[in-house]
Amino acid sequence: MKMEKRKLFHRLVSVEEGLEVLEEEQLLNPLGIEEVNLQKALYRVLADDIYAPIDYPPFDRSEVDGYAVNIKSVENADELNPAVLKIAGKVRIGEFPKIEVDEKNAVEIDTGAMIPRGTSGIVMEEYTKRKENEYVEVYRSVYTGENISFAGSDIAKGELLFSRGRVLDHIDIGILSSMGINKVKVYIEPKIAILSTGNELVPPGSDLSIGKIYDVNAYMIYSLLKAHGIESDMFGIVQDKEDILEERIRELLKSYDIIITSGGTSAGIDDVVYRVFDRVGEVLIHGFKLKPGKPTVLARSGRKLLIGLPGFPFSSLANSLLILLPALFKIRGTEYRAKTKKASIAVSFRKDIGRRWLVPVLLNSIDKKIYAIPFSTSSGSIMMVARADGIALLSENKDVIEEGSEVDVVVFNSFEDKEGIIMGSHDLMLPDILKESRLEAKLSYIPVGSYLGLELVKRGFIDIAPIHLFDENTGTYNAPFLNKDPVLKSSALLVRGYSRKLVLAFREGTNLRGLEDVLESGLRFANRNKGSGTRMYVDYLLKRISAEKGVDFKKITRELKGYEYNLPSHNSVAAAISQGRADAGVCIEHAARIYGLRYIPLTEEHYDFAVNRKSLEKNAVKTFIDYLEFNKIKKIAERYFGYIADSNAGKVICC
Amino acid sequence: MKMEKRKLFHRLVSVEEGLEVLEEEQLLNPLGIEEVNLQKALYRVLADDIYAPIDYPPFDRSEVDGYAVNIKSVENADELNPAVLKIAGKVRIGEFPKIEVDEKNAVEIDTGAMIPRGTSGIVMEEYTKRKENEYVEVYRSVYTGENISFAGSDIAKGELLFSRGRVLDHIDIGILSSMGINKVKVYIEPKIAILSTGNELVPPGSDLSIGKIYDVNAYMIYSLLKAHGIESDMFGIVQDKEDILEERIRELLKSYDIIITSGGTSAGIDDVVYRVFDRVGEVLIHGFKLKPGKPTVLARSGRKLLIGLPGFPFSSLANSLLILLPALFKIRGTEYRAKTKKASIAVSFRKDIGRRWLVPVLLNSIDKKIYAIPFSTSSGSIMMVARADGIALLSENKDVIEEGSEVDVVVFNSFEDKEGIIMGSHDLMLPDILKESRLEAKLSYIPVGSYLGLELVKRGFIDIAPIHLFDENTGTYNAPFLNKDPVLKSSALLVRGYSRKLVLAFREGTNLRGLEDVLESGLRFANRNKGSGTRMYVDYLLKRISAEKGVDFKKITRELKGYEYNLPSHNSVAAAISQGRADAGVCIEHAARIYGLRYIPLTEEHYDFAVNRKSLEKNAVKTFIDYLEFNKIKKIAERYFGYIADSNAGKVICC
Repeated sequence: MKMEKRKLFHRLVSVEEGLEVLEEEQLLNPLGIEEVNLQKALYRVLADDIYAPIDYPPFDRSEVDGYAVNIKSVENADELNPAVLKIAGKVRIGEFPKIEVDEKNAVEIDTGAMIPRGTSGIVMEEYTKRKENEYVEVYRSVYTGENISFAGSDIAKGELLFSRGRVLDHIDIGILSSMGINKVKVYIEPKIAILSTGNELVPPGSDLSIGKIYDVNAYMIYSLLKAHGIESDMFGIVQDKEDILEERIRELLKSYDIIITSGGTSAGIDDVVYRVFDRVGEVLIHGFKLKPGKPTVLARSGRKLLIGLPGFPFSSLANSLLILLPALFKIRGTEYRAKTKKASIAVSFRKDIGRRWLVPVLLNSIDKKIYAIPFSTSSGSIMMVARADGIALLSENKDVIEEGSEVDVVVFNSFEDKEGIIMGSHDLMLPDILKESRLEAKLSYIPVGSYLGLELVKRGFIDIAPIHLFDENTGTYNAPFLNKDPVLKSSALLVRGYSRKLVLAFREGTNLRGLEDVLESGLRFANRNKGSGTRMYVDYLLKRISAEKGVDFKKITRELKGYEYNLPSHNSVAAAISQGRADAGVCIEHAARIYGLRYIPLTEEHYDFAVNRKSLEKNAVKTFIDYLEFNKIKKIAERYFGYIADSNAGKVICC
Repeated sequence: MKMEKRKLFHRLVSVEEGLEVLEEEQLLNPLGIEEVNLQKALYRVLADDIYAPIDYPPFDRSEVDGYAVNIKSVENADELNPAVLKIAGKVRIGEFPKIEVDEKNAVEIDTGAMIPRGTSGIVMEEYTKRKENEYVEVYRSVYTGENISFAGSDIAKGELLFSRGRVLDHIDIGILSSMGINKVKVYIEPKIAILSTGNELVPPGSDLSIGKIYDVNAYMIYSLLKAHGIESDMFGIVQDKEDILEERIRELLKSYDIIITSGGTSAGIDDVVYRVFDRVGEVLIHGFKLKPGKPTVLARSGRKLLIGLPGFPFSSLANSLLILLPALFKIRGTEYRAKTKKASIAVSFRKDIGRRWLVPVLLNSIDKKIYAIPFSTSSGSIMMVARADGIALLSENKDVIEEGSEVDVVVFNSFEDKEGIIMGSHDLMLPDILKESRLEAKLSYIPVGSYLGLELVKRGFIDIAPIHLFDENTGTYNAPFLNKDPVLKSSALLVRGYSRKLVLAFREGTNLRGLEDVLESGLRFANRNKGSGTRMYVDYLLKRISAEKGVDFKKITRELKGYEYNLPSHNSVAAAISQGRADAGVCIEHAARIYGLRYIPLTEEHYDFAVNRKSLEKNAVKTFIDYLEFNKIKKIAERYFGYIADSNAGKVICC
């Protein structure tokens, strides 16, 4: 038995297998039962079935202020022929009525008060008039049972209210309160300790030296658990050293039921979590058939559970949703039910067989069908994941997920509240425009590059693609790319945005007058990714140099050190120069400035918006385009270096 | 100005007008700004826009364990022709790399470590083999940028991360952490006091004397706020006496920003909240165009807000969602966005003009269209509301909401996770069957009576209607009602359920041998509602008496005191007898027993299930029918008095 399990961690397992192993090892059993006051019961898990001890309401009560009557006494009563009844008395709320209603009298009654014997209906005060304080005139008839809320009509004494395992919400607590129950038996919550490992980690709030990175997971997992009603304690960052980590974990095991670590779990030489878990207990699972998230470690130490999550934020978040929360919810005595949706994948996706891929997606409901639009991102991402609507789970047994095929999506943003999707080129100012136009909650914006954005607009999956594509032939931006594609042209138009100054950036101490100087000085160039407008512009410059010098273009690209680089953004160019990985590069002025680089101006690139024609009906899209207006953009542009408002902003410039 | 506002509370206002008045009075302004640690920031509201202070990742880092290379050096490498590179050193995670990559060497690198200058790609460890510790063989080529996560690719330094007013979730906290931010400026949370008023109220946990009722609202509103991340303090029940309530509120106003009361707000003589609010401050709104929820009071005392909610639970919950939460969220510096959905109303609905009706509904997605199935309930209900998927808002300007017309629904249960709907006759044991068959989360069950249930099955809006309808002509239950309706028969079949013993119940001290004795003794009878199976059975008995005695049936019904009653359930019959509002009645044995009544047996009524034929494909419906099996039902039936399992249980008995 033990041998068999020892084997397990030498191969990767599926999420389901991993949780099954924990269940077999009895590590997911609840930790006991305690009684808590109702005030502390929100999100706690019931340890008992609860049957209604009383009826609710507990007696027949009036739903209005008025008069309790026998309905026969007001038959046919109306404005002209009111029924006149003697007032036999009054029932106040909270009292037991001692008077009886008959066919000649009426009893005054307050909302919520118990109806007297003989009452078959209540006439509302507004249909009555008191006469001489002894009689009441009634101006309408009453149907049987009118304005009475009967005993047990809402909750019947003896019926099952809630079963064991229920997570109590605020209405449940109201129901328990209505039953007179002020203490409930719930499962004991596990005591959970969270720590991060990694020599590269520094806690937020302290200084960041180069090569180091701020810890994300501790705060994120702590808050994720809290958002699910689960308390935990954060123990910060522990150095990636076996002895130190072991000592820390042994100490925590004295008072905690579950230890969650993140980082230090991969196959790398510095991986210590696996070895420490094996020292303080027994590793059960070392690796999942997931991407990202492969290196998650599950271990036991006696009856206690150790979970080692990967260090990269997206990996750690995804594994928290797929493995950590389901395990914790079981221990808490219930089931974790992630919100999932079936969706058709908008573009086909290539992957390797043998692992379930977790891909962030936006969801879009088009003609009542839900599409998942995947975008690739690093397992180290956090912002791109935050902007997603969910994570698509791509089957481990397939290497191609065909366009249109159905995938399961774990949903964490309510895409239904959104009105549209912007995907395309990255821009710093765009989030600011969305903020100022109050469209942040209505339009999702994911930077995926101009080309993919255009393709998605062309195929109708998204609403707006911001682009800045340079056309070598005309020396202009954007419009030619619509003009040369009839399908795109018929499904989209181009709205003018704004311009950004492109510069050649370099560190203080370097002196450059142009790209030619980079070539000649043998400096390393930080080139942008293929397909980006900036790279196209760099090629255009290099071709001019090639023509002027009569040197083959290919030869020039071979000679330019770093030409083969593939940096995805303006900031990555500026960072590479600033941090010494390269010496020069082309980026927008703002990136050069915030990295304290020197630069010379090159050109102004146009950042415009390809808009799906069908989306022009959407309010959010209309509002967005309306907001692209010289004066408004000018004001926002002042916050950024080298951004230029255009008098044509918001106008259709093609086609 | 003041005069104008004084007028307002003499007429009812819409929710929107009410909130506008609070806004004009500057009562919804945030209370100030404070700085909190990230660990305390979940669900707090940002008081500042936050721009990224650094790139994330802050440098180009490796996403894998492997070797940093210049991609040119591994061009065309494969299993047969590996590239052999000298190992120039190693970059550990957290270090600044001092080595440079060229076309002849490779640098060992850990996941998360910073890439050295000259690197254009990382080859994963698994595609390499070390040779003599000085060289590495590389078995595949690498594309430019492969396995590198570039500086700023996830978050670009200088970009807007979050705007003022954002409610921080766990991923946001991860993002702030990644930026090195450990303290955030957030709006100060208001200090909120909650109290209940009403002489009829007793706190849960204490004894309930007749006429009294347990307080629901204090715990429910406290928990509702907590579920939205809002803390408050509960101050229990205050007597409905002006002086006492005034003193209490004046005291609370010293330390709280917002006082929420529930109860004591209607037009009743005992209504004190309005008068007390007017004494300690100024009443701004006294009454909303809502049903339920009309008597909500809004008042100010200096800069402080007083909200008086109605006492009935459904009213108080609905007004919390529509008025309280939007007001509180504004004060917290953000917007409350209730989850709403458009849905087609399944049956037409009559209402009065001038008030917006709030009606609990179940939601069902049929052929990709969402239908709202309304069910009427008392404003004093809580369980019926808990079982709903949401509350439909029916326009104040219409008196008929036509079938199929679109309504807005405030959704609070995720109906998408459910598989089916059971609506029909009430039964105590049914929730137990759903629990044992593990269908509680998959099938919604709302008791609305046999007739409405059948109608909804017939029209395809629900899956199962439990019924117990007595047919006078045949003296049998249920099947005749399908047989005589061809449309119903074609859309539904009848599945046998179980039987319940009907008894004639009375108090200790009364002696009855049958319904005839009730008639003759002049005792008061607690009759069931029209259309209920039990009332039909009572009529059947009375007709037999009428035939035996040769007395007109009409005459008999006039002579039987309480014949005109309309009690909606077995428990309401038993409660009326037990509490002295009536002396005898027909109910199931279980109800008589739990109310400690004496009884004589009458018959066994059949409780069966009309099942939508289309629903037979649904897993949950299949599971439910499979569970209706003699041995299983027998075991559950043992928990209840007078429930009888049937050997035909689960079989199709018609048609």
